[in-house]
Amino acid sequence: MIIVMKPRTPQEEIMKIRNKIQELGCEIHESQGVNYHIFGLVGNTNTVDPDRILAIESVEKVIHVQEPYKIANRLFHPEDSVIKISDKKIGGQNFAVIAGPCSVESKEQIISIAEDVKSAGAGFLRGGAFKPRSSPYSFQGLREDGLELLKIAREKTGLPIVSELMSTEHLERFIEDVDVIQIGARNMQNFELLKEVGKTRKPIILKRGLSATIEELLLAAEYVLAQGNENVILCERGIRTFETYTRNTLDLGAIPVIKKLSHLPVIVDPSHAGGLWWLVDPMAKAAMVVGADGVMIEVHNDPANARCDGQQSLKPEKFSTLMNSLKELARIQGKVIN
Amino acid sequence: MIIVMKPRTPQEEIMKIRNKIQELGCEIHESQGVNYHIFGLVGNTNTVDPDRILAIESVEKVIHVQEPYKIANRLFHPEDSVIKISDKKIGGQNFAVIAGPCSVESKEQIISIAEDVKSAGAGFLRGGAFKPRSSPYSFQGLREDGLELLKIAREKTGLPIVSELMSTEHLERFIEDVDVIQIGARNMQNFELLKEVGKTRKPIILKRGLSATIEELLLAAEYVLAQGNENVILCERGIRTFETYTRNTLDLGAIPVIKKLSHLPVIVDPSHAGGLWWLVDPMAKAAMVVGADGVMIEVHNDPANARCDGQQSLKPEKFSTLMNSLKELARIQGKVIN
Amino acid sequence: MIIVMKPRTPQEEIMKIRNKIQELGCEIHESQGVNYHIFGLVGNTNTVDPDRILAIESVEKVIHVQEPYKIANRLFHPEDSVIKISDKKIGGQNFAVIAGPCSVESKEQIISIAEDVKSAGAGFLRGGAFKPRSSPYSFQGLREDGLELLKIAREKTGLPIVSELMSTEHLERFIEDVDVIQIGARNMQNFELLKEVGKTRKPIILKRGLSATIEELLLAAEYVLAQGNENVILCERGIRTFETYTRNTLDLGAIPVIKKLSHLPVIVDPSHAGGLWWLVDPMAKAAMVVGADGVMIEVHNDPANARCDGQQSLKPEKFSTLMNSLKELARIQGKVIN
Amino acid sequence: MIIVMKPRTPQEEIMKIRNKIQELGCEIHESQGVNYHIFGLVGNTNTVDPDRILAIESVEKVIHVQEPYKIANRLFHPEDSVIKISDKKIGGQNFAVIAGPCSVESKEQIISIAEDVKSAGAGFLRGGAFKPRSSPYSFQGLREDGLELLKIAREKTGLPIVSELMSTEHLERFIEDVDVIQIGARNMQNFELLKEVGKTRKPIILKRGLSATIEELLLAAEYVLAQGNENVILCERGIRTFETYTRNTLDLGAIPVIKKLSHLPVIVDPSHAGGLWWLVDPMAKAAMVVGADGVMIEVHNDPANARCDGQQSLKPEKFSTLMNSLKELARIQGKVIN
Repeated sequence: MIIVMKPRTPQEEIMKIRNKIQELGCEIHESQGVNYHIFGLVGNTNTVDPDRILAIESVEKVIHVQEPYKIANRLFHPEDSVIKISDKKIGGQNFAVIAGPCSVESKEQIISIAEDVKSAGAGFLRGGAFKPRSSPYSFQGLREDGLELLKIAREKTGLPIVSELMSTEHLERFIEDVDVIQIGARNMQNFELLKEVGKTRKPIILKRGLSATIEELLLAAEYVLAQGNENVILCERGIRTFETYTRNTLDLGAIPVIKKLSHLPVIVDPSHAGGLWWLVDPMAKAAMVVGADGVMIEVHNDPANARCDGQQSLKPEKFSTLMNSLKELARIQGKVIN
Repeated sequence: MIIVMKPRTPQEEIMKIRNKIQELGCEIHESQGVNYHIFGLVGNTNTVDPDRILAIESVEKVIHVQEPYKIANRLFHPEDSVIKISDKKIGGQNFAVIAGPCSVESKEQIISIAEDVKSAGAGFLRGGAFKPRSSPYSFQGLREDGLELLKIAREKTGLPIVSELMSTEHLERFIEDVDVIQIGARNMQNFELLKEVGKTRKPIILKRGLSATIEELLLAAEYVLAQGNENVILCERGIRTFETYTRNTLDLGAIPVIKKLSHLPVIVDPSHAGGLWWLVDPMAKAAMVVGADGVMIEVHNDPANARCDGQQSLKPEKFSTLMNSLKELARIQGKVIN
Repeated sequence: MIIVMKPRTPQEEIMKIRNKIQELGCEIHESQGVNYHIFGLVGNTNTVDPDRILAIESVEKVIHVQEPYKIANRLFHPEDSVIKISDKKIGGQNFAVIAGPCSVESKEQIISIAEDVKSAGAGFLRGGAFKPRSSPYSFQGLREDGLELLKIAREKTGLPIVSELMSTEHLERFIEDVDVIQIGARNMQNFELLKEVGKTRKPIILKRGLSATIEELLLAAEYVLAQGNENVILCERGIRTFETYTRNTLDLGAIPVIKKLSHLPVIVDPSHAGGLWWLVDPMAKAAMVVGADGVMIEVHNDPANARCDGQQSLKPEKFSTLMNSLKELARIQGKVIN
Repeated sequence: MIIVMKPRTPQEEIMKIRNKIQELGCEIHESQGVNYHIFGLVGNTNTVDPDRILAIESVEKVIHVQEPYKIANRLFHPEDSVIKISDKKIGGQNFAVIAGPCSVESKEQIISIAEDVKSAGAGFLRGGAFKPRSSPYSFQGLREDGLELLKIAREKTGLPIVSELMSTEHLERFIEDVDVIQIGARNMQNFELLKEVGKTRKPIILKRGLSATIEELLLAAEYVLAQGNENVILCERGIRTFETYTRNTLDLGAIPVIKKLSHLPVIVDPSHAGGLWWLVDPMAKAAMVVGADGVMIEVHNDPANARCDGQQSLKPEKFSTLMNSLKELARIQGKVIN
C-alpha cells in the first residue's frame, strides 16, 4: 500500500501518520519528493484499513498495490480451477454450453427445448423459475412449479440444470433441486445471499453486475469463496454503457483480463448482453476465441410467444447451427465442448 | 404503444400482427409510411407484453408512450406525497435532514453523534448496523448490536432512526426497531426484498442503484407500492460514470426529473455520491436549490478513526455550518427543515 | 416521425400542431389514447425539424422511425460497399490487416516494421506522423518528416500507407502522400474536418469517438458521404465505460449492428481499445469471427523504447503468430485476407 | 512516479529497470514487499515517459503522484485566476452570466434577445454562428453572416459576445469579431485548434468533452496555456452516461473538484446538459451554490420556432425570473454578478 501525503503537510503531521502505521505493524519505506511525501507500506498490510487512512485530512491518496481479493487471485493459485458438475467439467480445456429458455413456461415447452439443445450438443439446461423483472407487472416466473418442471426435463435428458436463486428463503429448495445455482447480475452485490451460497458446496454461476468493475466481480466471488465454497464460475453478461441500440455492451475483453487475474472459470452470456437474437451467434463465437470457458444461451421453440425475452432467444435450428460453428472453433482453440 | 414493422414486411405478416393485437383487445391505428408500417395501440395496452411483440422477427421496434409505472406516476396522483414519520414529515414543503455515522461503532459514538446532529438541527439519525461492503474482509457492521445502540440513541435524543436492511431475514427485527428502513443502492433491484418491505407499512428510503435509470428506480418503487406500502422515499446517491476523481457522479438533474414524473419524495445523499467530505457541503446545498425533499449526510466525531467511509464524513462542527447554510437556503426555497 | 402530446393538452393546442405539420407538407395519422394524443407523420418528414417540434411545450416526445442517416443506410443500399485502395479491397469478403507502429520514429524503425508486417501478411502499413496526445508535454509525432518516412517504407514494401489527419491545414499534403486518411476518435465530430475530407475522393478510416453512439458514428460518416466521398471505412476502437482495468471497452457487438444498419465496411482496432498488448491477439481474432472487415494493429520492434503506446504494441513475432490464427479463422469465416 | 514490478520478476530484470531510471536522472527509493518490488521516483520525473515504462513487460503498473498538468495546477498558482473581458471579469468573486440563443438566426432575433438578456442582468451575449450538429442535414448556422449580426447586437447593447470556433480556418475572423472564443465539447481534444487559440491572447471558454475526465479537461486547457494564453475559462456542460431521460448528466460535483485542482475559472452550461428548458432554472441555481464562476444559458424569444435546441431554451421572462433567483443566491454566496 502506498500513501501519498498532501503537498506542504507539516512534519509533525507526517510523524503522526508514521507512528500510526508503525503501530499497525507494517514496515515503512518513505520518499520525500519535490511536492509529495510518500509512504510505502510493506509486510502484512491487511491490518491497515485504507478507508481510515483516506479519512486523514493530510492524506492525498492511497494506492493499492496488491489486489484486494485473495482466494480468487491467480497469484496464489496459478493453475486453472476446474469445477465438476455431475459428469461434466467447467474450466481448463472444457468449454461449457448452457442452453435453455429464459423462463420455464410449461412441461411441454421445457422438455421440448431440453431435448433440442441436448441433441445439438449442449451440456447443461438453463431455465428461469424465479425471474427478476424490472417491472412488478411483468411475468415473475412459475417459481416452485418451474423447479419441478426443470427436474422432469433433467430426468428426460440427463442434462444438469442451472437456475437463478433470488433469495436466501429458497436456498434449501435450490440445494435439493438444481445442479448449478445462478446468482443474477442484479444480485451480484447482494452480500447476504452470497454468504449463504458460500456456505453450501453447490456450483455457483455468479453474473457480473450491470455496472460492476472486474475487481468488484472478483470481490463478490471472494464473498462466496471466503465461506468455503470454491465452486464459483464467473459470467460476463454485458455492462451498461451509453449505447442504446443494444441492451448492454458485451465486454469480451473482460474474459482475458479475468483469466489473467483469477483462476476461476468465466463464461459469457451473449443473449442478455445484446438483447437481440441475431447478435447471439457472432458474440458466442467471439466468446470462444477470446478464451471463455463456456457460454450461456437462451433458446426457445417459439420466441414470439415466449413469456420473457423472446427477442433474444434463438430457435433450436439456429442454436444447432451455432453449435456447429462452436465445435469448429473449439478444435482451433484446443477446447472440448462438454 | 407503437409498433414499427421492418421495411418490406409482406402484407400477410402485417395482417397476422394486426390479428394478434386485436385478439388482445386493443384498438389499432395504422400508418403506412414510405418505408415503415406502423401500428398505434390504443386502449388497455396492459394486456400487451412488449417483449412478445419484439420477439416477432418482422417487428423493428416497440415504443412505449405510457410510462410503465402506475402508482408512482404523477399523472395519476398530481399532488406531492408527504410521508409521516413520528412527528416529522418528508415531502411537500418539508426538507428532511438525516444525519449520522456510516456505521454504528459504540454506544458512546452513536450517542455523541446523535446529540451533535440533533443540536445542529437534523431531524433524523442514520446509522448502519448491517453494512454492505465490496470486500468480505471489510468491517461488516455490528449487526443486531448496532440496532440496539441506535435505539438507545433514539431514546436519548428523540430522533427517529434510519438504518439499512440487507435481507428479508432481518425484516421482523427492523419493523420492530427502526423508524425508516433503507434499501441500499446495491439492493435496488433485489425484488424479493422489495416485495417483502412492500407488505409492511414502514417508511422506506429506496436508493437509486449505481447504474439504474430513473425509470428503473421508479419501477423498483412500484414493487413496494404495488404491495400496498405507499411510504416510499426515493434517494439519489450518485451514479457510476467514467470519471474516477469522485467515487460516483451525483445526478442532481434527476431531482427535478423525478419530481416531474412522480409524486414521491426524493432526497439526496451527497456523502456517498462523491466519497469526499469536502464535496458534501456544496452538493447538499445544491440538493436544496434543485428541489430535493431532504438530504442524508454522514457525520462522524472522529473520521480518521471511523470504521468505514471516514473520508466522506463531516465532523459535527462542519455539519453545523452546513445546517446554517441549508436553513438560509430553505427560506429562499420556501422549505421547512424538520 | 411520431409526436406524442402531453396528457391533457387542450384541443385548440392539438389543432395548432396539426396545422403546423400540415403546412410542412406531411400526411398525418392521429390516435387518441386514454392519456396521450399521438400524431404519426407520413411522407417526406425531412422537412420537419424534430428540435422545433420538441420545443413546443405541449409536446411530450418526438420519436424517429426512420434513421437520420441516408447515404450510409443499408436500407437504400443493400449490398456491401467495397473500397478499393491500390490493388487491395476493404469490405465484402475481404479482410484487411493494417499494421504498424503507433508513431513513425525513424527511417530504420519504420522500414524494419513495414518489412516485418508485410512478411507476416499485413496488407497495409499504419504509422502516426501527427499524434493526438492528451498532454501537450507528450511526444506529438514527427509531423511532415513522419510522412516522408512513411513514403520511403511504402516504396520499400509496396504497402499502401494509412496515417491520421488532425487538421484541414495538412489535407493537401495527405492527399498527396498517404493512401488512406485516418480520422481519429477525438475528431469524429470535428465536422469541418469531415466536410473537407468529404470533398476529396481519398479512402477515409473514420474512428468511432470514445463515447459516440453507433448512430452518431453513422451520422459522422454521413458528413463525409454527403460531400460525395463514398470511400468511408468505419472503425470500432473501444468506448469509454466505468471499467478502469482496460483503457477502453471494445464494443464488438457494434460490428454486427453496424453491418445491419449500414453497407459501409467496418474494421476493429484492438490495440487502442484495451491499451494492453496481451489483449490484442484474442480481441483481433474475435473481430474476425463477429464479421469485421479488418483489423488495425500496432506493431513495434522495440515496444519498451517506443515513443508512444509501447504497452499496447505487439512485437513482430507475436504479430506473426496472430496472423496465422487470423488466416485459420478466415477460412472458417469465408474471408480473404489481403 | 511509482513503478510496481510484476510478482516474481527476476533480480536481473529489476536491475535493468533500476539502471534505466538512473540514466534518466531520477533518484530512486525502492521497497521490496512480499509479492511486489516497488520503485519510487523522486526528482525531475518529467524526463520519464510513463508509456515507455509501461511497455516493459515486467512492469505491473505505473502510478502518477504528481498531476500531469502544470500551468493549470493550483499547486503552483494558489490564488484564483480572474479573466478580464472588456469591463467584465470572470473568476474570483465574480459570477458571469452569458446568455443568448443557440444560433443567430436574424438581425431582429439577435437584437431582441440581446436586449432582453441585458435588461435581465446578463453580462455577456452568446450566439452560435458556426454550429456543430450531429447530422449534416441539420441547420449549420449562418456562419460569417452570424458573426456580423452578433457584432450589431454588441453595438446595440454593449454586451461582449461569445461564439464557438470550429476550425483554425476561421480563427483570424474570430480574433477580429468576438470577445470570447468558445471551444465546443466535441473539439475539446482537437489539439491543433487548441494550439492555435493558445497562440492568441483571446479569452477562451473550453467546454468539457462529453466523456472527458476532469484530468483530460485540464490537460486540454494546458494545451492552450502552454502556448502562452492564460485566459482560459473551463465549462462543465454535462457528461454522457447511461441515463436517457436527460440528454446528458450535469456533473456539478466537478465544479468544487476543478476549483480544488486548478486556479482557472469554471462555468456551467445547464442548457446543453439536460437538453430540457425546465431543468435550466434549478441547475443554474445549483451551479451558483456549488461555487461555479458563472453560467451560460440559452435564451430564445420564440423557442418553438428556434432553428436549433428550442427545447432547451428559456423564454426571456423565465430567464428574468432565474436572474432574480441568481441575484438572491449571489448575496448568500458572496458573489457579484457582472
